[in-house]
Amino acid sequence: MAMLSIDLNCDMGEGFGVYEMGADEEIMQQISSANIACGFHAGDPVIMRRTVDLAIKNKVAIGAHPGFPDLLGFGRRKMDLSTQEIYEIVIYQVGALLGFVQAAGARLHHVKPHGALYTKAATDKALAQAIAKAVYDIDPALILYGLAGSELIKAGIDIGLVVANEVFADRTYQNDGTLTPHTQPNCLIVSIGAAVRQVIRMVREQKVKTLQGQDIPIIADTVCIHGDRANALSFARKIKKSLEQAGVEVVAV
Amino acid sequence: MAMLSIDLNCDMGEGFGVYEMGADEEIMQQISSANIACGFHAGDPVIMRRTVDLAIKNKVAIGAHPGFPDLLGFGRRKMDLSTQEIYEIVIYQVGALLGFVQAAGARLHHVKPHGALYTKAATDKALAQAIAKAVYDIDPALILYGLAGSELIKAGIDIGLVVANEVFADRTYQNDGTLTPHTQPNCLIVSIGAAVRQVIRMVREQKVKTLQGQDIPIIADTVCIHGDRANALSFARKIKKSLEQAGVEVVAV
Amino acid sequence: MAMLSIDLNCDMGEGFGVYEMGADEEIMQQISSANIACGFHAGDPVIMRRTVDLAIKNKVAIGAHPGFPDLLGFGRRKMDLSTQEIYEIVIYQVGALLGFVQAAGARLHHVKPHGALYTKAATDKALAQAIAKAVYDIDPALILYGLAGSELIKAGIDIGLVVANEVFADRTYQNDGTLTPHTQPNCLIVSIGAAVRQVIRMVREQKVKTLQGQDIPIIADTVCIHGDRANALSFARKIKKSLEQAGVEVVAV
Amino acid sequence: MAMLSIDLNCDMGEGFGVYEMGADEEIMQQISSANIACGFHAGDPVIMRRTVDLAIKNKVAIGAHPGFPDLLGFGRRKMDLSTQEIYEIVIYQVGALLGFVQAAGARLHHVKPHGALYTKAATDKALAQAIAKAVYDIDPALILYGLAGSELIKAGIDIGLVVANEVFADRTYQNDGTLTPHTQPNCLIVSIGAAVRQVIRMVREQKVKTLQGQDIPIIADTVCIHGDRANALSFARKIKKSLEQAGVEVVAV
Repeated sequence: MAMLSIDLNCDMGEGFGVYEMGADEEIMQQISSANIACGFHAGDPVIMRRTVDLAIKNKVAIGAHPGFPDLLGFGRRKMDLSTQEIYEIVIYQVGALLGFVQAAGARLHHVKPHGALYTKAATDKALAQAIAKAVYDIDPALILYGLAGSELIKAGIDIGLVVANEVFADRTYQNDGTLTPHTQPNCLIVSIGAAVRQVIRMVREQKVKTLQGQDIPIIADTVCIHGDRANALSFARKIKKSLEQAGVEVVAV
Repeated sequence: MAMLSIDLNCDMGEGFGVYEMGADEEIMQQISSANIACGFHAGDPVIMRRTVDLAIKNKVAIGAHPGFPDLLGFGRRKMDLSTQEIYEIVIYQVGALLGFVQAAGARLHHVKPHGALYTKAATDKALAQAIAKAVYDIDPALILYGLAGSELIKAGIDIGLVVANEVFADRTYQNDGTLTPHTQPNCLIVSIGAAVRQVIRMVREQKVKTLQGQDIPIIADTVCIHGDRANALSFARKIKKSLEQAGVEVVAV
Repeated sequence: MAMLSIDLNCDMGEGFGVYEMGADEEIMQQISSANIACGFHAGDPVIMRRTVDLAIKNKVAIGAHPGFPDLLGFGRRKMDLSTQEIYEIVIYQVGALLGFVQAAGARLHHVKPHGALYTKAATDKALAQAIAKAVYDIDPALILYGLAGSELIKAGIDIGLVVANEVFADRTYQNDGTLTPHTQPNCLIVSIGAAVRQVIRMVREQKVKTLQGQDIPIIADTVCIHGDRANALSFARKIKKSLEQAGVEVVAV
Repeated sequence: MAMLSIDLNCDMGEGFGVYEMGADEEIMQQISSANIACGFHAGDPVIMRRTVDLAIKNKVAIGAHPGFPDLLGFGRRKMDLSTQEIYEIVIYQVGALLGFVQAAGARLHHVKPHGALYTKAATDKALAQAIAKAVYDIDPALILYGLAGSELIKAGIDIGLVVANEVFADRTYQNDGTLTPHTQPNCLIVSIGAAVRQVIRMVREQKVKTLQGQDIPIIADTVCIHGDRANALSFARKIKKSLEQAGVEVVAV
């Protein structure tokens, strides 16, 4: 019987200049793929080079993490860009990271949009297609990470990309498969035990119990670790350890 | 007898957002290689994509044109960056342009630093080496453009890059081979006829007469056309036509 | 009988660094109030100082022209900022211009939001109130410019500011008093004669004929001259001359 | 006999967007004047408003802390700006903070340049004069903070400003009155006891013992607390307590 496996991904390199964010060095040891900020919502050339090196050292798959051009809002504010502009800001950012990856003699593995770009791409078909096309045009061998079952995943499949359905350990789900918004109660799963159980069930049974109590199908290729969550490091450690103890291998897509 | 040839290069894509600069569409028809701004001193993702397409359409060789991170100063103000930071801002910018070039199915041909970065790299050995290493690490097949005989050219040769010695049609030279600074009288050659004669002599005889009246040796692989000069377009047209009439082919390095 | 009067305003100082925009020197001679960009959507410290001096020299009333923090999009793209953030970006930008006005020994006269901020403030009550409060808190003697009859005008009146209802000479109106969107046919009035007649009727009769052919009431305190329109300068000259010939004095609010 | 007094100042509000820096809330309780970043090297409209409110709540004198336009380098990298440009970036930043101060019904107390701008202004007379003129032109009642005995202090006095000579508790001095550069050994005074003794002697005797062992005269109007130093908060607490125990009142200039 084939061993079950799952990817653990985390946003990395999200500081800027003198500003630091996240325990990158420690968390990099717990994950199998890293989404590295590309300078628009966070990150800068110095941090990008350092984070690429850190990923290589830890044998972690390297992904680009493009966002809206909004450092002040950390890419979390929706901006009205045309789909053409979306295509172009994704090309720019993925290209910039590709420069560091190529210079380090490594290989770019995936692309995962950040923040408001990720959220919009989950439901906005035209936006999702623009992102998928940008990724495909740069390199059709790149893997596209998106919310499990979202428009972004569909757009990636349509254009011929390998995709990775992303699930969340510490977020609750709605009956329609979307995440419970941050503005609503019980959006977060605080207990690490419950979070781990949710992930293991997603991997083993391709199911998740929604906040409303219903079982819905879900495909889980990769689990998002929030680097900016309180206790992010201990959460990452426990998720990884628990998955391995449950016989689920942690490995990049 | 082999035909004499020279490259005509021009900075392109130096607008930003709604701001336009230069007659890119027209000048692109007169040159053999384009240095495309990468978003730090000028340029943005929309403009970069459009300028790459324009170069492809006109069969012009595509180069990256990285500068200091200083949009406000158009990259013309010296900034105190460490050589490590220089290495990283060059990787970032060349990578970003590489994204557009790859997405368009084309090939990146060269890198030419912009403004204060170009000027500093002509005399600052450590800075020149940092730039040359960045270019080499991304792709050793890239050609490095720099001031003829400068530290940047030496650093490119030392690391194993093909280099292009850049000369100026409309600038006068000093006995030590440097350009007469903009702060001094007679720094510019206003007459197009005189400018063309200076270039043709550089190509044919590898010599230039300095402002002080002395003949000095010079290697001319590529001639810079200033896109922001008054009458840039007619200047480009006349240079190209005069060179061709003199039996010098205009072709990328 | 009191003489009829109207204010002619125009956006000014909308270049950035080496980038120029608009014929500020010439247009400044035709208008009675200037809205000066504050560095977020356009403008920089050098340009702001120069434009303040230009306004003083031409005895033009000086206004701040704050926009979204989006130089790349020239402040024309909607951004999701909280009303608290809107309050703060308005304070920042008005304050920055106030610095130049105070340093020049002049007086700040008004505030007019730019682009997407102006458009959103016309219909979004909470946003309009945030802008009005920011202006009031800095100086209750400032005049708030907004689309005639809009939420911004109402918010200004509510908080106790003097307001200026802005009308457009070269745009057509809908029956509900809004401007015909740029995406629809006949949004622009191309004929200068027709544009001037529209303005004079607004001033004399407080009425405008809509695109649908209906007369609706409108209050016209100030007319917007588009500095980036083709033939902006000749348009400004004709508007001013025609108004004066019709016995309408051009003077700041 | 008049009581001895000294000002304790600290840089405040130096985060950006989601990025935090320094324990502003706690340190604000230990100081008598705050230098608030103005958005160029650090700080943004949200943080500026919040920091102004925090200073008011703690009855701390509010100062503007303008820097080079270099968020990526935190204003610590020298940039080649003309003195005219320096004048304009100071006006812009002081004006922006003035907006928040006015809106909060408070009073702007002083201006202290940041980082590389502070360092250059200590020895570059033309630069120092440009800064002093900018401060004076905005409001001649503002106090100019600069390195004790520096060109900036002289320029402030020359133009008619009240000045504050700044000294450092935890830095050693050279015989010529300059600070021992960070690149040299023993530039820092690690012992808090020694730092406090250095300050008290400066206040009481207007003298400091240099690293070379010589006593030199020094005027101490204000002491800089480094908010980004390890243990900044406990350092601030001990400095304040020790000064008060020694009979030196901590109060703004």
